[in-house]
Amino acid sequence: MKREARAAVPLDEFGIIRRFFRPLAGEGALDLNDDAAHLTVPPGFDLVVTADTIASGVHFLPEDPPESVACKALRVNLSDLAAKGAEAIGYVLSIALSQEIDGGWLGAFAQGLRADQDAFGISLLGGDTISVRHAPVISITALGRVPSGDMVRRSGGAPGDALYVTGAIGGATAGLAVATSEPGAWEGLAGLVRERLLRRYRVPEPRIGLAPVLRAHASAAMDVSDGLVGDCDKLAEASGVSAVIEADLVPIEPGLAALAEDDAMLARLITGGDDYEILAAVPSESEEAFRAAAEGAGIAVTRIGRLVAGRGAAKVRRSGKPLALGRRSYAHGAGRGSSHG
Amino acid sequence: MKREARAAVPLDEFGIIRRFFRPLAGEGALDLNDDAAHLTVPPGFDLVVTADTIASGVHFLPEDPPESVACKALRVNLSDLAAKGAEAIGYVLSIALSQEIDGGWLGAFAQGLRADQDAFGISLLGGDTISVRHAPVISITALGRVPSGDMVRRSGGAPGDALYVTGAIGGATAGLAVATSEPGAWEGLAGLVRERLLRRYRVPEPRIGLAPVLRAHASAAMDVSDGLVGDCDKLAEASGVSAVIEADLVPIEPGLAALAEDDAMLARLITGGDDYEILAAVPSESEEAFRAAAEGAGIAVTRIGRLVAGRGAAKVRRSGKPLALGRRSYAHGAGRGSSHG
Repeated sequence: MKREARAAVPLDEFGIIRRFFRPLAGEGALDLNDDAAHLTVPPGFDLVVTADTIASGVHFLPEDPPESVACKALRVNLSDLAAKGAEAIGYVLSIALSQEIDGGWLGAFAQGLRADQDAFGISLLGGDTISVRHAPVISITALGRVPSGDMVRRSGGAPGDALYVTGAIGGATAGLAVATSEPGAWEGLAGLVRERLLRRYRVPEPRIGLAPVLRAHASAAMDVSDGLVGDCDKLAEASGVSAVIEADLVPIEPGLAALAEDDAMLARLITGGDDYEILAAVPSESEEAFRAAAEGAGIAVTRIGRLVAGRGAAKVRRSGKPLALGRRSYAHGAGRGSSHG
Repeated sequence: MKREARAAVPLDEFGIIRRFFRPLAGEGALDLNDDAAHLTVPPGFDLVVTADTIASGVHFLPEDPPESVACKALRVNLSDLAAKGAEAIGYVLSIALSQEIDGGWLGAFAQGLRADQDAFGISLLGGDTISVRHAPVISITALGRVPSGDMVRRSGGAPGDALYVTGAIGGATAGLAVATSEPGAWEGLAGLVRERLLRRYRVPEPRIGLAPVLRAHASAAMDVSDGLVGDCDKLAEASGVSAVIEADLVPIEPGLAALAEDDAMLARLITGGDDYEILAAVPSESEEAFRAAAEGAGIAVTRIGRLVAGRGAAKVRRSGKPLALGRRSYAHGAGRGSSHG
């Protein structure tokens, strides 16, 4: 990014809001010119609320393009809504800006939000802009709606339910390694593969099309943000069961298959963060309908294991033998980050 | 605060959530054990959404008691909801923790939230906890409800409407001066006065009882967070009018009346931040009913001026003459903070 080349923009509070955020405001947001926004949840629907915060140097890199930072901040929330079977309505943006953030950065950040608002049919409802001395922190609270009582939870799984995951796993882990020029196997990857991996890290693809499929056919679901294995543990724990994951079945990001033949690398990929795929438990009698509906929605789903009676961490096997895992989840930055609701 | 004396608590992500935040979770928050919360907005009500972020060293002082930091983070949002005529439902907490935050701090912070949840009849819906390297940042998005179409806006005022303010102005400005040991007139204040001023800065009193009064009788309203004069400018601008403020009429915080005889001090108090009172425009035919209803709700309201035809900044007079103002609004910290929706 050629940040130096951008025109300097004075960053007073009203200038920021008027210039960058007001154009993003949707119906009920009153042009961000009031203390609050209002909206109507249609009769027969519940409101679904989720929040995710990302910080520079923790969830994104200071040199990441501002457009992709905006997309990531928004999409990690849209991923949560999709996993709950909810359709997004809008979002609230709270942003703590630091001195290094200039008008050029903000303009590009707002462009990223605009593009995703258009792509996902949502709008900005409001928020807050403050100044801090250090790395920027971006908090988004997203609102969605779901037919009353139909929110898909983590806790509905039962022994025997099949475990499915969308898309592919490990691309973001590899993308972060590429972005940080981590030495090792990544260095041998082709340029186009590296580019796609970078994008997987920077710009998740929320599986919003799966929301109605989950409502219709899943017993439990969550988004995979902190590592497939650890997130599977969480779903199983919330459902009062355990799980078995067949690591051979996990759909690994295209381009990484050769690397993943190594056990340690496979373990790293299935415990790495930022996949933003959806993990779903599906009762056996619903599997066929689930797969057909997912295909109809254009979303690849792969059966990777099942829930089993008992408690405790999921068993992870490769070729029928336990796969050694150094960790089960990915801890962002200093390792204290976790979404809690 | 005797932080050293507190027991050390390991600060892993799940420990924080389980120990400090899960006990605060309300209905629909699924024990903060899911990706999202769900709630039902009753038929006939609109959802009202507001967000405010506070940062250490900007909106609160690093040495402020954690309980009061929690109360301030929550109450600045409740103040917004009240000003919109809305009743609070619950809140989403996104907190970026820094290394200096230990288990003792978090425990006291959670106690502050608990006390206010009980006081205001709300609960935690969800959120996110992340780790950052520097000063903590606390973002709260609060949800409220209002009878459909009844949200009180900034934009409903008309020429001739009387301007009322709740409570008293300037206490938080003086409290910040006391907290930071600013030299000057504050030093002569009695100990009990200084204590009350400190509390005014640290723990705002959201005027939640005024919400139904505003819905019934106000043409426009907002909460006063960035300075009475500048906030009055904003309400007038949103309403397409101007305003006149009689500074003699502004209810000054008890204990500061003598200081406020000085024009410069009065100007400072009515342009200082963190009052979290409510400014309301009331049509003349509704004034009597508004005052009676406010009295019935136990909330002092004082007429301080009126809206007038025209555009531009409010005229501020004292004893019939223009009062010199060095600023119109208070800029927190580096001066880039502003709520925008």
